[in-house]
Amino acid sequence: MIADLSAADLEAFGARIQADYDAFRARGLKLDMTRGKPAPEQLDLAEGMLALPGNRDHLTEAGEDARNYGGVQGVAEVRALFSGTLGAKPERIVVGDNASLAMMHDSIVWALLKGVPGSAKPWGRESEIAFLCPVPGYDRHFAICEEYGIRMIPVPMTGHGPDMAKVEELVRDPAVKGMWCVPKYSNPSAESYSDETVRRLASMKTGAPDFRLFWDNAYVLHHLTDERREILNVLDACADAGNPDRAFVFASTSKMTLAGAGLAFFASSEANVKWYLARASKRTIGPDKLNQLRHVRFLRDEAGLVAHMDKHRALLAPKFQTVTDALTSRLANQGAARWIKPDGGYFVSVDVTEGAASRVVALAKDAGLLLTAAGATWPYGKDPHDSNLRLAPSYPSLSDVKAASEGIALCILLAAIESESARRRSEAA
Amino acid sequence: MIADLSAADLEAFGARIQADYDAFRARGLKLDMTRGKPAPEQLDLAEGMLALPGNRDHLTEAGEDARNYGGVQGVAEVRALFSGTLGAKPERIVVGDNASLAMMHDSIVWALLKGVPGSAKPWGRESEIAFLCPVPGYDRHFAICEEYGIRMIPVPMTGHGPDMAKVEELVRDPAVKGMWCVPKYSNPSAESYSDETVRRLASMKTGAPDFRLFWDNAYVLHHLTDERREILNVLDACADAGNPDRAFVFASTSKMTLAGAGLAFFASSEANVKWYLARASKRTIGPDKLNQLRHVRFLRDEAGLVAHMDKHRALLAPKFQTVTDALTSRLANQGAARWIKPDGGYFVSVDVTEGAASRVVALAKDAGLLLTAAGATWPYGKDPHDSNLRLAPSYPSLSDVKAASEGIALCILLAAIESESARRRSEAA
Repeated sequence: MIADLSAADLEAFGARIQADYDAFRARGLKLDMTRGKPAPEQLDLAEGMLALPGNRDHLTEAGEDARNYGGVQGVAEVRALFSGTLGAKPERIVVGDNASLAMMHDSIVWALLKGVPGSAKPWGRESEIAFLCPVPGYDRHFAICEEYGIRMIPVPMTGHGPDMAKVEELVRDPAVKGMWCVPKYSNPSAESYSDETVRRLASMKTGAPDFRLFWDNAYVLHHLTDERREILNVLDACADAGNPDRAFVFASTSKMTLAGAGLAFFASSEANVKWYLARASKRTIGPDKLNQLRHVRFLRDEAGLVAHMDKHRALLAPKFQTVTDALTSRLANQGAARWIKPDGGYFVSVDVTEGAASRVVALAKDAGLLLTAAGATWPYGKDPHDSNLRLAPSYPSLSDVKAASEGIALCILLAAIESESARRRSEAA
Repeated sequence: MIADLSAADLEAFGARIQADYDAFRARGLKLDMTRGKPAPEQLDLAEGMLALPGNRDHLTEAGEDARNYGGVQGVAEVRALFSGTLGAKPERIVVGDNASLAMMHDSIVWALLKGVPGSAKPWGRESEIAFLCPVPGYDRHFAICEEYGIRMIPVPMTGHGPDMAKVEELVRDPAVKGMWCVPKYSNPSAESYSDETVRRLASMKTGAPDFRLFWDNAYVLHHLTDERREILNVLDACADAGNPDRAFVFASTSKMTLAGAGLAFFASSEANVKWYLARASKRTIGPDKLNQLRHVRFLRDEAGLVAHMDKHRALLAPKFQTVTDALTSRLANQGAARWIKPDGGYFVSVDVTEGAASRVVALAKDAGLLLTAAGATWPYGKDPHDSNLRLAPSYPSLSDVKAASEGIALCILLAAIESESARRRSEAA
């Protein structure tokens, strides 16, 4: 533990780490660990899609011409293919275009302008509304709330989902209309919601009768280990608890097939799906059904989908291993950082000592290593503890991830030593 | 003229047309003239796209990987390809996914929740807002206004665009925030806005400083004759008049390449494009860039685009000719209907005598011929004159269009004879 070192040992350790950092910096690398996006090799896994559906292949199983207008809910065989993954019957699924974020955005916009099933009036006509935001969380979720003036209330994550005692207390306020959830391999903490967490979210008493869980199951099949974690089916849990309309479930194939040319999904209760389709029908005559056929032709069935995800895992798992190996090797038992080894998802979340995150990002930048801005995982980009770092190892090559992880560990150590030295100087003064 | 016939002649003529109608009805046809969508043969013209972009072909000219996230404005070479068509520099164009309707919808939603450049506050915070709606017009435009409680004010079309004296008077009201325009081969009247109309729209004094023309140039290249009508560039006209931010221009390739898998476009001033992208960036990380590449690979350049549209014209022009031939053959000089022969677009608009449109639709339905509901071309689906009919000849086969047109002419004649007989009875009583 750095905190336990004698003055002389701290100074010596500091000098050694500074030297290592300087050597790292002198390599003049250009590394980027900010981007939670698939690497080119992962996109290559879907190479077969680029020439699909292929000549004359434009009819759905029902005989509809996928080239023409229509079909706002999405092609039936695509909804069937993803039914198990989404935990919803095909008739309770809507297939969108390439971004589940867009379906979340539109759900909020329509809630603001029209209300959702159970609303007394449009959310935008309330004097104020708020969303619960488990932290650390996904910056693009928070950006939608900020865009539309929805107050964000942070709730700490616990390792098995958000702090439910806090959540249950906060949702008694009728101004709280929604809550962001990334329930499996959460962004960025990689934790998954326990069954108890899901049950309590489904059954808790809410002040707003039209409260909604925005259940972004972005990493539903994005396992990094053999464990293939499953979480409780939130739609079933809500129905069982007598709150059938509580959850809007979202997912996409952006990190399954092609990041920019995937399919997005909305799944929910009968009333919510009817509501969503009524709104969506004002916006479009239908989604890109050829891209839906392209997905069915390529993935074929759920087994094909799972096998495809195994290929992603084979490319991703070594990168995550490299990150956590480097952190463990340098930081174990130093008291400078806490992290968990992700068993799924796209991020490694690291909590450094309070006030040190932005210093780590600055040190890294100075050494040619781009990290996500400190605070990005908090509402309004402001981490009150300045302690959370989000690392994204998917995009760089394995050798770059190795170099970057070594650099990150050094920056964290250096910041911790600086901070400890400053603390002692301040105590001595 | 039916109105000039003697009582005996009217009765004899009525009996003859009734017999013709009965014979038509007895054929037991199933015809549908409601759908303004491309026929399968038109979609076949883009057959080459179904296997594009093809293996390993995923890089843009700038070397970006079109498979991955990003590029919210759209691929540069796609914006360049459509620059001439849209009348805007590539940097003033945003490429959306498959529906320009969605870009119009989103522009309105964002205006309601955020305001547009020049707004004192979000449109949704005004006590009431209104849009001018040239009639007859496009039902899906009107449906967006109805969905969001925007009052619609009908303005008559004149044959060269909306009645500008009325428009200039109405826009003095600061509650009037926008106006729907289909400026070329308008839906459904097929008329194109004169240069004077465009200039007056660009320069008129509006009560609302943040008034916008929703310029849906849906049929920009959809000529049916050699004339290839051009209209004045509205973005230039607005800039020249000192109102650079007045027009939001929309278009799509839905009726160029594939109706359900085309590209949509937004083009406007620098400030408006910046505004649009700032909003869109909250909604999505980027559009489907592979579909954008697919379009460039298939169409290649503006000449390729124009040549492709000529093939559509070759399929569509005979269908439109068939409709207007049948109308002329049966209805010329009867005083039962007025129509113009479209030189572009997707519809034939027919004005029957006041109060007769819904009777024509009912007669047609009874004879197995589906027509768009009377009133559909008016805000709230209510045509106060019950006189406008919208015919969509693109989708059925040429022989079906021929049969349907004959049936429509008979229904119009029969309704007119019924109406004239009723008038005389009522006068005699």
